[in-house]
Amino acid sequence: MSQNNIAEYHAKRAAFIQEDRSRRADHARPGNRFEAEAKADAIISSLRAEEAISVWEAEHERIQHPFPGMEFLTARDVITGTKIFKILTKMPKGALLHSHLDGTVNQRILLKLALEQPAIHISAARPLTAANIASTQPIFKALPAAQFTQGQVSLADPAYVGESLVDARTARETFPPELGGPAGFDDWIVGALTINPKEAYNTHNTVPKIWQKFTSTFLTSSPLTHFVPIWKQYVREYILSSIADGISYIETRINFLSKQMTNEHGEEVVEHREWLLNFEQIVNEVKAELKKEGREDDFIGAKIIYTTIRFITPAELEWYTADCIALKREFPHLIAGFDLVGDENLLKPLIDYIVPLLQFQADCKEAEVEIPFLFHAGETLGDGSKADVNLYDAILLGTKRIGHGFSLVKHPMLMQVCRERDIMLEVCPISNEILRLTSSMPMHPLPIVLNNGIPVALCSDDPAVFGNMGLSFDFYQVLVASEVTGLIQLGEMARDSIKYSCMDADEKARASAAWEKKWVAFVEAVASNVDGLLET
Amino acid sequence: MSQNNIAEYHAKRAAFIQEDRSRRADHARPGNRFEAEAKADAIISSLRAEEAISVWEAEHERIQHPFPGMEFLTARDVITGTKIFKILTKMPKGALLHSHLDGTVNQRILLKLALEQPAIHISAARPLTAANIASTQPIFKALPAAQFTQGQVSLADPAYVGESLVDARTARETFPPELGGPAGFDDWIVGALTINPKEAYNTHNTVPKIWQKFTSTFLTSSPLTHFVPIWKQYVREYILSSIADGISYIETRINFLSKQMTNEHGEEVVEHREWLLNFEQIVNEVKAELKKEGREDDFIGAKIIYTTIRFITPAELEWYTADCIALKREFPHLIAGFDLVGDENLLKPLIDYIVPLLQFQADCKEAEVEIPFLFHAGETLGDGSKADVNLYDAILLGTKRIGHGFSLVKHPMLMQVCRERDIMLEVCPISNEILRLTSSMPMHPLPIVLNNGIPVALCSDDPAVFGNMGLSFDFYQVLVASEVTGLIQLGEMARDSIKYSCMDADEKARASAAWEKKWVAFVEAVASNVDGLLET
Repeated sequence: MSQNNIAEYHAKRAAFIQEDRSRRADHARPGNRFEAEAKADAIISSLRAEEAISVWEAEHERIQHPFPGMEFLTARDVITGTKIFKILTKMPKGALLHSHLDGTVNQRILLKLALEQPAIHISAARPLTAANIASTQPIFKALPAAQFTQGQVSLADPAYVGESLVDARTARETFPPELGGPAGFDDWIVGALTINPKEAYNTHNTVPKIWQKFTSTFLTSSPLTHFVPIWKQYVREYILSSIADGISYIETRINFLSKQMTNEHGEEVVEHREWLLNFEQIVNEVKAELKKEGREDDFIGAKIIYTTIRFITPAELEWYTADCIALKREFPHLIAGFDLVGDENLLKPLIDYIVPLLQFQADCKEAEVEIPFLFHAGETLGDGSKADVNLYDAILLGTKRIGHGFSLVKHPMLMQVCRERDIMLEVCPISNEILRLTSSMPMHPLPIVLNNGIPVALCSDDPAVFGNMGLSFDFYQVLVASEVTGLIQLGEMARDSIKYSCMDADEKARASAAWEKKWVAFVEAVASNVDGLLET
Repeated sequence: MSQNNIAEYHAKRAAFIQEDRSRRADHARPGNRFEAEAKADAIISSLRAEEAISVWEAEHERIQHPFPGMEFLTARDVITGTKIFKILTKMPKGALLHSHLDGTVNQRILLKLALEQPAIHISAARPLTAANIASTQPIFKALPAAQFTQGQVSLADPAYVGESLVDARTARETFPPELGGPAGFDDWIVGALTINPKEAYNTHNTVPKIWQKFTSTFLTSSPLTHFVPIWKQYVREYILSSIADGISYIETRINFLSKQMTNEHGEEVVEHREWLLNFEQIVNEVKAELKKEGREDDFIGAKIIYTTIRFITPAELEWYTADCIALKREFPHLIAGFDLVGDENLLKPLIDYIVPLLQFQADCKEAEVEIPFLFHAGETLGDGSKADVNLYDAILLGTKRIGHGFSLVKHPMLMQVCRERDIMLEVCPISNEILRLTSSMPMHPLPIVLNNGIPVALCSDDPAVFGNMGLSFDFYQVLVASEVTGLIQLGEMARDSIKYSCMDADEKARASAAWEKKWVAFVEAVASNVDGLLET
């Protein structure tokens, strides 16, 4: 072989690889690059290679098979100790576009908020014992003052009458030593509110089984998050913790299935428009506080994606679409879009709702409001199943983004349509893994989506249940599971999260300018002094 | 909403779904369909829906999470009891294009063949005990008669000197009761030759770890399969058992790394051309036997894909490419192509061999022989890793088919090139799952490949190690994990296995005609009397 032939092969090869990757955001937009950005990207790449060995090939107590991108619930404590993770916590994340409000705040914080409320009471189906506590679910309820319970009946007292309500603080204080005392009470509650590694990777290690556990967590949390005094603090905590992780804008899905929340007097009378008034109040308070500190750029705002659950009848959906339009008319700046939620594998597919959904579009037109669909679709391992087929309907109905779209990669024509019509995918890597759509990040289809040039925003979904607060964990898992996706690609996804949000043009321009400024500062810090950055 | 609008939506939707699936073989070739075929497809679909509940939602002792397409090693006994599996065993499979000869025969049969040979001796690193047997590997060796061992030393005798050879039959007969006696001996050997569920899904549950166990099985089997008297029976057994499963043509990869096999006198002197002479002899014997029974159509023949292992140096590769060309000149009808094997994640990527590989192509041209590349590539979870990047080189080097190509789905342009240049993928579903590239069939990327219109042949890879003898198991796992892929798609893959084989035009025409005839008979049997078929 002549040297010429070999050189020719190498040239052809480089062009071939470049062409295959040409639709990726990090390859398609080289105009954006500047020196510090490229240097920061290279530093992170070499740190990834280093930690792939120093961290992920090391022995870890209680981790049988460590590897980069491994099961999140097992790996969480290792991840937080890595340099890459610490660096990513400093990265400006842009917008968080896919989260379910009721599942966004650390559950220990939710419990603390609950225990501050005398109205919050708790019950169990039977007196608790060491043998039954793991399978007995705590059920909360906010009561009117007149119904507050008296006395000191412990949930573990054999005389405790199943399902009777006990003041939560009393229940905690009287939790018996054999169940761990007050700390045992906390663990019981938090265990019911979160998915643990044994559940995800052993006892509930299939999509249907883990969804049972997943939905059960909301049975315990809903009476708390739907109690207005807690809800307001919860929204505030969600926004503040997101800002702390570098998120500057939020579009959160609120479940409006319940027509009323419970007010501070224990009355279930607070209607949807009051939810929005409260939400707006909190958002404005946070903005004002940040402004005082000269930090306006840290938080551009938050909007609401109106959702209800896909088990209602098509006729019932009409009430919700009308409600959504009414809210949009009153709060045009707050309602970002419309979606249906719940396990697509079990519940009704979009096609079942085709009549009210087409009607909704006609009604919006008549009311002169724009409420884009932001449908969950294809959150499934099914091939041709109803959940997979939801993708066709979501796209035909003109969805602006797709929630999850996990099975989209099976559909070459749909991927082309997403690219052409600029439909973004809200990808929730850790959620997908814990809900057993993928066993670990190296098996996740995200690289397929990126290589096909479909815009992606990484999202956290239900971090309260999964433990992936903020976006740093999801960014981390994506970064370490690839040798192609680097810091620049993460940056492009953050940038796109703003571009494909439902902000209006002015808001978007402001959010975008603020993000670009922070991005420059971040990559310059990585490029010039990564150790210094780690110490901040 | 008017009925017109709804009807219009449904029409648009049906066209949209059809367009998305239009590249699939089962959608793209409707001209082939006939009534019985469509009816058989529908019968299998409804049987799949029925058994998804009756079989896969039932309780099974020792199966924690049953579901269709679940982990093969756990599910094997359930699968063999299903109606769908029994029907698939009757299906004409076409060609088996991807198997490694040394890993194709049931290991209990290999052990039986070994025990018939007085030359076969065995050793262990230390005297066996209940505590060390699971971690002590049996090592075989074929000895010349002069070195046959005398006496009755048991491998479990504390006086046994580690690594000393004992006649295998004696070793078996003297296997002590506390280790299970002779049956315990058999289990020890078979355990070393196969992957069990606990290894795949627990102790070795990552790609690198399971590959360690996988490669270790060949340490035990190689001295047996490389002993000519066994090898000839092994080849015969592989062919016969394949025919029994409906396979009518085989292209098997033979590992020519060792330059000599051991002859019946225990001498390591049998060179590659004699391997081919023996192979040809067996193939011809089987053909002659079938002809006597009027069953010529059951077996068209078998060819060899020349392989060596990708840990040799580029300079060493030159010896093998020259050897391959020499064999092709002497046995033009036997050598089908060339490949490099071994764990792509650990061993050398194709680019390391670019000089000898380009030289090989030039040498073939000069020698006026055609030896297509049939490269393993992309058998990995890596994204941009060297194993993933092998795909670029395999395709640039003009590979005719790709072995595995598991990560191909990440590469939109490469998929387009495969479609345009008609490059087939040899997909090994069960191998991929056991080697932990996918946790179960619903996570396997095969639907992506099929929907992109890339030709696929399903293959068994190393069924001796995995337990997926024949092709019925792999066909089963693919069928039950999808609601799109039905009997017609399986038929198209079988048809394509002949089309993309390395048979010459005459052989291909004969194989194809024979297969089409069997296919018609099969679908007519399913369509007209599926219960009758189950009883045969």
